[in-house]
Amino acid sequence: MRIIGIDPGYAIVGYGVLDYRGGHFSVVEFGAITTKKDTPFENRLCEIYEDYCYLLDRHKPDALSMERLYFNTNQKTAIDVAQARGIIAMATAQRNIEINEYTPLQVKQAVVGYGRAVKKQVQDMTRRILGLDSVPKPDDTADALALAICHAHVGSSLLKDIKAKG
Amino acid sequence: MRIIGIDPGYAIVGYGVLDYRGGHFSVVEFGAITTKKDTPFENRLCEIYEDYCYLLDRHKPDALSMERLYFNTNQKTAIDVAQARGIIAMATAQRNIEINEYTPLQVKQAVVGYGRAVKKQVQDMTRRILGLDSVPKPDDTADALALAICHAHVGSSLLKDIKAKG
Repeated sequence: MRIIGIDPGYAIVGYGVLDYRGGHFSVVEFGAITTKKDTPFENRLCEIYEDYCYLLDRHKPDALSMERLYFNTNQKTAIDVAQARGIIAMATAQRNIEINEYTPLQVKQAVVGYGRAVKKQVQDMTRRILGLDSVPKPDDTADALALAICHAHVGSSLLKDIKAKG
Repeated sequence: MRIIGIDPGYAIVGYGVLDYRGGHFSVVEFGAITTKKDTPFENRLCEIYEDYCYLLDRHKPDALSMERLYFNTNQKTAIDVAQARGIIAMATAQRNIEINEYTPLQVKQAVVGYGRAVKKQVQDMTRRILGLDSVPKPDDTADALALAICHAHVGSSLLKDIKAKG
């Protein structure tokens, strides 16, 4: 199973592409799509769409694992992140790739095994699970990789159930 | 100047296309893009994108006039409307069509000349300005036409300034 993890945003979209087979991970690519503050917002959305479509078409993942949006105190930011999230979801659905969403709590439980883990613990466990020398930067990229791991751990058991039924 | 007015949403996207020349309006087309509740949300976004792109490519408007998003009490709805709004904005920017946003207050002032006008007054004035027999349905379509009128009244004076400078 090839999974793309995405930490949605409009200035930085963290991504991580992993292969998960036989309980083992191999890292395909990770990084971040970034857009500039002085670019009009709608053009930033166009850039995210183009770059994300390119990622999908290059790596052809089986599933997307994305952080579930929640409202924070900054409503303007939440609206703008939601707009970028819509672009990501549409590009994924256009290619019939399944979309999965997880909360930060679910990611912590799946990666560290402990829902109250702090960010540093999640990042360090992500690094160890993937056999990386250092924690990927920026944080959005590390978060995206953790989301991909989360879906592998949670989703693979679901997949087995589906296959057993199929 | 050809203007497309859009009342953004994910179940109903109201639209209205108007030509505005020499202080007079002619109606090109109005209606609504609708998506079904039982369609997965990301597929609803795909449908909105396809239908909206078709509208833009068929009518080739010079400008989009869209309602500015604001937060209401239902955060889930606000996030989902914002995602649809992102799709609309991106499709418009992909075609280099200018994007304008107006608040309900601005629309009321531009259409009725009175910021505290009620919905029925805005709808009736929209109908009269456009010489229609009845108020278009659903409300989202009537709102989209009012947005297009608003941009014609507000934006045309701006355009004159730009042309005078150019």
